[in-house]
Amino acid sequence: MTRVTVRTPVVRYRDGAFSSRSDTVSGEEPLEIRIGGEPFTTTMRTPGADIELAHGLLHAEGVITARADVRGARYCSGVGPDGRNTYNVLEVSLTDSAAAQRVRPRTMVTNSACGVCGAESIDAITRISRYLPGPLTMTPETISALPDRLRARQRTFRLTGGIHACALTTQDGLIEEVREDVGRHNAMDKVIGAALLADRLPLTDRALLTSSRASFELVQKATLAGVGMLIAVSAPSSLAVQLAEQAGLTLIGFTSATGFNIYTGPWRVTGAPGR
Amino acid sequence: MTRVTVRTPVVRYRDGAFSSRSDTVSGEEPLEIRIGGEPFTTTMRTPGADIELAHGLLHAEGVITARADVRGARYCSGVGPDGRNTYNVLEVSLTDSAAAQRVRPRTMVTNSACGVCGAESIDAITRISRYLPGPLTMTPETISALPDRLRARQRTFRLTGGIHACALTTQDGLIEEVREDVGRHNAMDKVIGAALLADRLPLTDRALLTSSRASFELVQKATLAGVGMLIAVSAPSSLAVQLAEQAGLTLIGFTSATGFNIYTGPWRVTGAPGR
Repeated sequence: MTRVTVRTPVVRYRDGAFSSRSDTVSGEEPLEIRIGGEPFTTTMRTPGADIELAHGLLHAEGVITARADVRGARYCSGVGPDGRNTYNVLEVSLTDSAAAQRVRPRTMVTNSACGVCGAESIDAITRISRYLPGPLTMTPETISALPDRLRARQRTFRLTGGIHACALTTQDGLIEEVREDVGRHNAMDKVIGAALLADRLPLTDRALLTSSRASFELVQKATLAGVGMLIAVSAPSSLAVQLAEQAGLTLIGFTSATGFNIYTGPWRVTGAPGR
Repeated sequence: MTRVTVRTPVVRYRDGAFSSRSDTVSGEEPLEIRIGGEPFTTTMRTPGADIELAHGLLHAEGVITARADVRGARYCSGVGPDGRNTYNVLEVSLTDSAAAQRVRPRTMVTNSACGVCGAESIDAITRISRYLPGPLTMTPETISALPDRLRARQRTFRLTGGIHACALTTQDGLIEEVREDVGRHNAMDKVIGAALLADRLPLTDRALLTSSRASFELVQKATLAGVGMLIAVSAPSSLAVQLAEQAGLTLIGFTSATGFNIYTGPWRVTGAPGR
């Protein structure tokens, strides 16, 4: 399995200077699990140990209690746009007794760290935004200063040491809104929801800042809100980089007072070279 | 809203000594969003800004595009077991035109950070385990040493700087299995799935270690696998503490080489005082 990590070009800013290099990000791809031919769930995961993942997930969901409940698990033979097997659809067949104990397909509950909802198949997980990402530009000094500014505004983090935050910021680095939540996607939904309630969408000349990793679904939410830039304190995933590139969003990761990495859209950062 | 943070008793281990104190954890509670009386989704969130959260989530899901699509949003008047309104069910009514554009209820996709699936209502999110948590005991020195041991085994983290891990460990601190994933719940599903495939459930004399926060769903998965202890590198949520207490699981957070906090079940840690 070679998709556990993915190489990607990156523009690095450190100690006042830009450099172009290659970086390694964690693989993130959707795995659709089917039971008896019917879609059961799709989870965004790092490829590898998919059979174990399916067994563990079906155990946690109460579908199986032991290995003996599963007759077999294999990748579907379907192919992706490039004609190769995606290895992203896993077909599980239950024994007759295990299948008989399943009353009916369950509905899904999104948890504190879950944000991609509503798609029916892997092809459908990407939503098309009604807005183009805005044309804002930011200086590297402004970007580097944001994590400390956000932390200073995180009231609940100071009390608990464990909660995510999302902020809406102007291109001058003025933080307009901050929301905290145990779920990073909830924090972003709260910020974008507040903007929507104020009839402010699309957020053309604004950036979003997250205290967490940049996953696929955060890039998706940022794109759908029309912001030009998503700045993450931690690492992006492979699918986050891919979607940001397609959407024309500037995606920045590993942001701290000493620097950051630009994964896509470097033209929105003052002085940054193209890739 | 007073449920953004929750006070909880904790046994602290630092510099070789135990002390009992009070700690503050981030609130985590389920929010069920209904549209026109029908359940749409349940998300585990920190209470507060729920109206904004619902608007942002429905925007990201493509249900609404502007504030004008929502006729109103209000908490349901239902009450919890204590006879008080839970403020955990939000009823959203759409305008006729927005409702007409919704083709049908969507199915859900779990993302890289989502693990609680399958429940139909807030009351149903807790699953009863077939196993009692195992009776293992661990020394504080063993517990403190685990994060560094895990990090040393995290091959993908070394490459990317951004991926979660879960490990299965003996009570002597021997790490038997490590799985990495962009989703912390996937990493745990992989570890438990591997144990299930080896016919090893329940994991009575084992502990699970997570590189992340301890959320509700990680405590749930650990409990369902029959382990006695869940050790987290970062903070637990309020609901994680509550479920661990009910289930009899030992829950440990903020674990590092210099110490940790015991939130529930201190009797499994050698030398720890009861609470």
